[in-house]
Amino acid sequence: MEGLKQYIRSIPDFPKKGILFRDITTLLKNPAKFKQVIDVFYDKYKDKKIEAIVAAEARGFILGGALAYKLDCAFVPVRKKGKLPAGTIEATYELEYGTDTICMHKDAIKPKERVLILDDLLATGGTAKAMCDLVGKTGGDIVGIAFMIELCDLKGRDKIKEYDIFTLITY
Amino acid sequence: MEGLKQYIRSIPDFPKKGILFRDITTLLKNPAKFKQVIDVFYDKYKDKKIEAIVAAEARGFILGGALAYKLDCAFVPVRKKGKLPAGTIEATYELEYGTDTICMHKDAIKPKERVLILDDLLATGGTAKAMCDLVGKTGGDIVGIAFMIELCDLKGRDKIKEYDIFTLITY
Repeated sequence: MEGLKQYIRSIPDFPKKGILFRDITTLLKNPAKFKQVIDVFYDKYKDKKIEAIVAAEARGFILGGALAYKLDCAFVPVRKKGKLPAGTIEATYELEYGTDTICMHKDAIKPKERVLILDDLLATGGTAKAMCDLVGKTGGDIVGIAFMIELCDLKGRDKIKEYDIFTLITY
Repeated sequence: MEGLKQYIRSIPDFPKKGILFRDITTLLKNPAKFKQVIDVFYDKYKDKKIEAIVAAEARGFILGGALAYKLDCAFVPVRKKGKLPAGTIEATYELEYGTDTICMHKDAIKPKERVLILDDLLATGGTAKAMCDLVGKTGGDIVGIAFMIELCDLKGRDKIKEYDIFTLITY
């Protein structure tokens, strides 16, 4: 999928000095490329009997909504603490300084439900691992974890290596 | 579209006492109902030559991503300040106490581009009006504004009455 890479804009020193930010908005505003991304994910998972896509705010919602529609499956949002209105389960992960917590409704996934975890970016893997923990707490079955972009140097893959991982664009 | 209403969960006193929160996550986890929502929007706009959907984080991204895929158009995210990496334009709107600011990349929409603004909820109309202001600054053409839910008592419609407004579920 290296044909997609030229549609990702690289922005130095965002959100802070020394970080080269991979901006997907330039891809999202190209209808053919946005469609290609979703269709590649669809082809990968269409025979896997996916029942729910779990995706984290905010950018994960864009791809997750589109793929859930195409796969004809449920969409389950993972959000920062305090954003989901009903009873939640939580998972905490390490940041460079401190920790962060993400939440999912505790009734969002049924035991044995076949789940695809989807996000735009695999960096250190902290969020992805926390999403796996959330799905694990519900008893859901993680069929795969998919990302549009993987930043290989950060070795996020090591945190979730027991799962089937699929990435479209690597740096 | 009153058949959709039973899939919206109403949660009292969220995010604070006295607010009856309309929770769309129960609809999103029903594949047939999520599909129905997107297909109704698609039927409404499929002949309107929509070139871009503009949607605000976070919940607007779920519907916006799905509908942009189906309409084969661009997806343009509107985000809180500090989240978009390239040059932005801003719009500010009033909250109950204070103000909030939302941003869009300044190169996201071209002059005359045919835009659909989409969000999950029309409440006071502050965010919707600010999104209209953002698109207006780029010279884009607002073909319509669509919401899954309209809270009629809050009269948000009055703030954006010069536009074509479409809502699926009303309270």
